[in-house]
Amino acid sequence: MGAHTVNIVLVGVGNLGRRFTQLLSDKAAHLKTRYSLVLRLVGVADSRGTAHDPSGLDLETIVRIKTEGGSVGEYPSVGKLQATAVELVRDVEANLLCEASPVNLQAGGEPGLSCVRTALAKGMHVVTPNKGPIVLAYRELVNLAASHGVKLRYDGTVAGGLPALYLGMRDLRGATIERIEAVPNVVTGYILDQLAEGASWEEALVRAQESGHLEADPNWDLDGWDTTAKLVILANAVLDYPAQLEDVSREGITGISPEEVRRETERGRVLRLLAVAERTGTREYELRVKPEALPKTHPLGHLGSHEIGVVYTTDIYGTITAIIDEPTPLPSAATMLRDILDIYATQ
Amino acid sequence: MGAHTVNIVLVGVGNLGRRFTQLLSDKAAHLKTRYSLVLRLVGVADSRGTAHDPSGLDLETIVRIKTEGGSVGEYPSVGKLQATAVELVRDVEANLLCEASPVNLQAGGEPGLSCVRTALAKGMHVVTPNKGPIVLAYRELVNLAASHGVKLRYDGTVAGGLPALYLGMRDLRGATIERIEAVPNVVTGYILDQLAEGASWEEALVRAQESGHLEADPNWDLDGWDTTAKLVILANAVLDYPAQLEDVSREGITGISPEEVRRETERGRVLRLLAVAERTGTREYELRVKPEALPKTHPLGHLGSHEIGVVYTTDIYGTITAIIDEPTPLPSAATMLRDILDIYATQ
Repeated sequence: MGAHTVNIVLVGVGNLGRRFTQLLSDKAAHLKTRYSLVLRLVGVADSRGTAHDPSGLDLETIVRIKTEGGSVGEYPSVGKLQATAVELVRDVEANLLCEASPVNLQAGGEPGLSCVRTALAKGMHVVTPNKGPIVLAYRELVNLAASHGVKLRYDGTVAGGLPALYLGMRDLRGATIERIEAVPNVVTGYILDQLAEGASWEEALVRAQESGHLEADPNWDLDGWDTTAKLVILANAVLDYPAQLEDVSREGITGISPEEVRRETERGRVLRLLAVAERTGTREYELRVKPEALPKTHPLGHLGSHEIGVVYTTDIYGTITAIIDEPTPLPSAATMLRDILDIYATQ
Repeated sequence: MGAHTVNIVLVGVGNLGRRFTQLLSDKAAHLKTRYSLVLRLVGVADSRGTAHDPSGLDLETIVRIKTEGGSVGEYPSVGKLQATAVELVRDVEANLLCEASPVNLQAGGEPGLSCVRTALAKGMHVVTPNKGPIVLAYRELVNLAASHGVKLRYDGTVAGGLPALYLGMRDLRGATIERIEAVPNVVTGYILDQLAEGASWEEALVRAQESGHLEADPNWDLDGWDTTAKLVILANAVLDYPAQLEDVSREGITGISPEEVRRETERGRVLRLLAVAERTGTREYELRVKPEALPKTHPLGHLGSHEIGVVYTTDIYGTITAIIDEPTPLPSAATMLRDILDIYATQ
């Protein structure tokens, strides 16, 4: 049986996009043998330019350019500086868009949202770990995908490499979900553990920055926006509950004193920024994000500094907990591969 | 949009089958509203008889007969005592078989195996939480389903209501799985915890029996056969490694002294019958089942008495742990609903 070729456009070649490009190279042989699939990167865009080659771009060249701090607009002969991602998605013939640009809720989810809209409207599948478009336009994008007969997958938006969405959306079908509890943000847990071990806030922030966990805008994590965005996606996708950011009662970790963290730690508890969706009626949920001191008896009461997790309390499938230990962003980048295989792999 | 009706034959109305019948009744409205699905039970068999009605059997009547210790062969007007499950599957027009008869490896997996073969060969989908047919004839049944264009789902065979198979087979696609560690058997953990709390072996066994956890043949659990069968299914389905029962190095919990259990508990460890598949080469795995004292740092080192779980260590998706708290067999029975929705629900 011949291999099936999927032509891919990748938008965003930062932390996740670069690792995903490397994955396409590392896994090419395995994907061909195991799934008869060839994933061919025909277009790529970063914030400064694009490159496009219908016969396939060289993956190692892209990884090298980005590792050296360059733009894919400098790609030999086919690179175009100043060309935009949206133009690329609009003009290139491809089967699938990987949208991996950074979250940008302030700018209305752009440029990610326009890229996703453009791709779906021209009949391309979309996979994305970018929370922006999904949080801001969940229903519109799901409907757009359905009306064009294509698939929209966004497993990487909620809990790094943990398939929290697939678990909730597929494996819990038929259940009533009474409660979701999630600790979906790595860096707040890392910082709280630093405080627990005796660091000051300043020290904890420096270490978080050095470890590469902290976003360019630390408040996105610390004020609980990242966790809130993830809860909104869980609510829409898993609970079919049309929540938006403003429906979540939100409290970040910035107000926490190191003494308080250490006191809870001494009591055998672990402090985490917890997202909760609690069922309050037939189709009603209460949503909140708040630091909580989790006792050892809580399913997430043993999370390590690089672990995140989710707990689903259901009527017929018991209480199911899933946790990932994710010391690097590779699993988050790999969610794009998981999503692509969900679309193309035949069991 | 009209609802889609699925005609179902259920074989086995014991612990799981009876709960599944109740579920079909309890969830009928939800399934129709949410998935436009009507699941209609047109045939049912237990070890003493069958009942068949193309217009649909009454679910509450079946539950009542079984709760009172009767046979479905006594079902008003359409019950047939002494008719067999295989005859029913062969003769009835239906879309799907739920095979929920007890595991019976000694008898070559019968009657489950013949029912599953018969159903697949006549173009029926099959869902089953019965390990027997899957352990004994994995490759044959998977091929039979493929060649007849139908689906075979067996999520309930491995870890009760935990979707360990869907997680491993779908969400880890693209990865190399370095190791699987699983504690898939409830009753051995329950007994070990009883010993840890000071019970003698005799007391622990009596309590396990009273709690309804222990199988009719206790050695199936205690000697590690149940755990071994589950590891064999994980190896075949998730690792694509054609293991059989005799490929597993197996040690049960019968030889364990209560003193040893208590010593490990005092050291902060939790004793569990652990199943491990460890990658030893490109397509080679070493399989073993053995009691292990798990430290608190192990992802399964905090399992409660009604919890089971699985850990997947992968190259690209980090280390993923999934745990279920399953105080009753309802989640195990509900896996049949999960499997049916996997076949019929459109997202």
